Amino acid sequence: MNKRLIIYILGWVLMIEGATMQLSTAVGLIYHERDYLIFLLCGLGCMLLGGVLVIRKPKSSVMLLRDGFAATALSWLVLSFAGCLPFFFSGAIPDFVDAVFETASGFTTTGATILRDIEILPRCILFWRSFSHFLGGMGVVVFLLAVIPRLGGNQSINLMKAESTGPSVNKSMPKLRNYAALLYSIYVGLTAIETVLLLCGGMSIFDAVTTSFSTAGTGGFMVYNDSMGHFAGNHYLQAVVAVFMMLFGVNFYVYILILSRKFKLAFKNEEMLIYVIFTLCVTMLITVDIYHIYGSVYESFHQSFFYVTSIGSTTGMALTDVDTWPEFSRALILLVTCVGACAGSTGGGFKVSRLLILLKGMRKEFNLILHPRSVHTVKLDNKRITHEVTRSVSVYFVIYTLIVIVTTILVSLNGFDFMTNISAVLATLNNVGPGMNAVGSTNNYADFNVISKIIFIFNMLAGRLELYPFLLIFVPSAWKRN
Amino acid sequence: MNKRLIIYILGWVLMIEGATMQLSTAVGLIYHERDYLIFLLCGLGCMLLGGVLVIRKPKSSVMLLRDGFAATALSWLVLSFAGCLPFFFSGAIPDFVDAVFETASGFTTTGATILRDIEILPRCILFWRSFSHFLGGMGVVVFLLAVIPRLGGNQSINLMKAESTGPSVNKSMPKLRNYAALLYSIYVGLTAIETVLLLCGGMSIFDAVTTSFSTAGTGGFMVYNDSMGHFAGNHYLQAVVAVFMMLFGVNFYVYILILSRKFKLAFKNEEMLIYVIFTLCVTMLITVDIYHIYGSVYESFHQSFFYVTSIGSTTGMALTDVDTWPEFSRALILLVTCVGACAGSTGGGFKVSRLLILLKGMRKEFNLILHPRSVHTVKLDNKRITHEVTRSVSVYFVIYTLIVIVTTILVSLNGFDFMTNISAVLATLNNVGPGMNAVGSTNNYADFNVISKIIFIFNMLAGRLELYPFLLIFVPSAWKRN
Repeated sequence: MNKRLIIYILGWVLMIEGATMQLSTAVGLIYHERDYLIFLLCGLGCMLLGGVLVIRKPKSSVMLLRDGFAATALSWLVLSFAGCLPFFFSGAIPDFVDAVFETASGFTTTGATILRDIEILPRCILFWRSFSHFLGGMGVVVFLLAVIPRLGGNQSINLMKAESTGPSVNKSMPKLRNYAALLYSIYVGLTAIETVLLLCGGMSIFDAVTTSFSTAGTGGFMVYNDSMGHFAGNHYLQAVVAVFMMLFGVNFYVYILILSRKFKLAFKNEEMLIYVIFTLCVTMLITVDIYHIYGSVYESFHQSFFYVTSIGSTTGMALTDVDTWPEFSRALILLVTCVGACAGSTGGGFKVSRLLILLKGMRKEFNLILHPRSVHTVKLDNKRITHEVTRSVSVYFVIYTLIVIVTTILVSLNGFDFMTNISAVLATLNNVGPGMNAVGSTNNYADFNVISKIIFIFNMLAGRLELYPFLLIFVPSAWKRN
Repeated sequence: MNKRLIIYILGWVLMIEGATMQLSTAVGLIYHERDYLIFLLCGLGCMLLGGVLVIRKPKSSVMLLRDGFAATALSWLVLSFAGCLPFFFSGAIPDFVDAVFETASGFTTTGATILRDIEILPRCILFWRSFSHFLGGMGVVVFLLAVIPRLGGNQSINLMKAESTGPSVNKSMPKLRNYAALLYSIYVGLTAIETVLLLCGGMSIFDAVTTSFSTAGTGGFMVYNDSMGHFAGNHYLQAVVAVFMMLFGVNFYVYILILSRKFKLAFKNEEMLIYVIFTLCVTMLITVDIYHIYGSVYESFHQSFFYVTSIGSTTGMALTDVDTWPEFSRALILLVTCVGACAGSTGGGFKVSRLLILLKGMRKEFNLILHPRSVHTVKLDNKRITHEVTRSVSVYFVIYTLIVIVTTILVSLNGFDFMTNISAVLATLNNVGPGMNAVGSTNNYADFNVISKIIFIFNMLAGRLELYPFLLIFVPSAWKRN
């Protein structure tokens, strides 16, 4: 491991985190809240510590895959531990593990909460909670690529590989720094558009900004206890959020294609098409299944579309208590929880492209049995998927399932029912947030014991970093010298 | 497809099934039951129809992989449909789908039942029910290999591939016919030993024989409503059954090694060791978890060991209502349900060897990230696992999971809770039998709607034939001419 380089990167992460805390300081000052001081001090502390770490520049800028993975995984741990300090010191979340849970949930854009009452908290705290989604959504290390001079080199692709979502980073982008900046521009642009649309619908500026942060990162934290159900009378606001949740779940590469006026390529993107078709199909099935509850096609569709896009993009906002829906709809929601969004989006989950690669591998296997002597290849968007990617995706699926099984068994020691346990595990691992029953759309994670909460923190981080980078830091031999 | 050859094989399957029905005729005559006539007539009907089908010998004995797969899959469908006739015509199971369910459950050695009261049925019916486990356990097409003159050739390996359990048939056995006969000898021998041991424990001859059939095939059908709980006072009988359930879940190749005095190789068999260690570990964990219910280490261990070997070998016999156990134990049982027994045993499930191959593939992937330039291979019992087998196992895992997800969603239309639905799906697909809650160890599958029952029949057959052979008959292009 290139430990000095890793420490250098961690220093930058701390400095950026400390700097962004000053946004909450400002919010506190605007709304005359005492807690602005907490953010000021925590932020300065982070910047100071970070500053000390970056003084000593790394001798070598060689970054192997494992260095990139370790740097990214540790960055996210640092983000979660430093980011929880304002929650902890302000007394908003007096238990330290709870505070880490809430912060990890924020940065990983999970949106699972241990808070029973959100509305009593000061606005600067709520802002930090929502802003963590925004920072975590596109990835903080990708941000570094765009701003730190020493990190723009080709080897930094290993940082991008570790933090970007989906089976493989598009290598056709020659200039990494420009690519990272472009992604961030699209991200900020879409967020701004959503904020304006929400303001037009009559939302207050604070609500509009925090809701947009939460949507942009596909996180799910809201400033009201009843999530988007708070705006029950305003279908416009709910529809805007639903559409933007879906948009943020799309591969950002599609937006780059649109910006470069390659419309044909953009709208023929296989992963996006399947993502949209899958979302619409499930929406239709649930609309039919819940029709008897809402009594009108429009209301059933509205409810169904909002929650399917919310879970499908792994945001996790809610309009209603979904546990009152029939078992068939709930089972479909659980499926949507697992699949997740597109690769290269801010969304989590297993990813549509991985699913496509697995399904195409399955078709290949059947063809091999039928025609053993023919040549069969797996293609995505007319590009051949290499054997390495297929194998990597298969192994990813194995590790993913293994984590689901092992953590579900461990969490079941709490004595909750099976649906609660498995949905809590899937909701954290896929960075969705709400599960079913005791962790359903109107409940929270407060009642789990401390070991389970640590397991959920593990799942959220492992899920956000797509397993390999995060799991690697637990492999002792990874820490040997290069 | 070589359709004539397939029809020829189906004819032999029908003849054998008709012949074995005469065993039930004999049981009916011995116990002076009227229903002996049903078995006599159904059996003669099967033999007659089968006889007609084998008159016209196939022109070509060329059997490609897909021919072998189709012949085996159709054989099992024929077994289930013809085998249900005595249940249906005797009025024991008046609903036809229910009768097919019970028969498929028997032959696939699942042991899931739609019967609410077993004890009111005549003994010849109960005998046929248990005997179906015995016939299905080792496989009926493997039996054909040993007895039909025209089928001993090398190409018949494709029949064996389709019906044997586990990722790949051991190709080092040069003489297929001898190998099949050897497997059957071990199978019958072990069954005979168990019968004698049960007789020594005071079981009646009828109970001993049916229980041994059920154990041998790792099926689970019993002649009492409370399964092995009927012998609550006799721990000896329960222990004998528990040990034999475990023995029948071991790769029969190990017994061949023992018979050839290769003890070292036998006891170093990786899959068997992991199977035994896994069974014992789970037994220990559950023993601790249920200690507060039974109040003694001995009783807790006895209960735990019986149920873990029962589910782990995919037999499914029960001593008690496992739904009273804590959620942690129930989650572990669900895991054991999925893993199943060893390849090349009579047990079902995903198979320990497949799990081992997946886990070793996972380790390889981590090593590749750490040391990209080294060469990494996956080995089992010191033999290199080829890339083809690894890929096939990965795809198997994908299809397996896909079936679990899709059928769980479809079955949830019944309105049962999630644990009931997913455990019912896992219990049928892994040929275990009992699930949890509404399909728990003291319940049955009677209350599901007819579509769900057909789905369960699909799962049982797909699980027993290990997916590929059974799914292939639904692929239209598989039916094109060679």
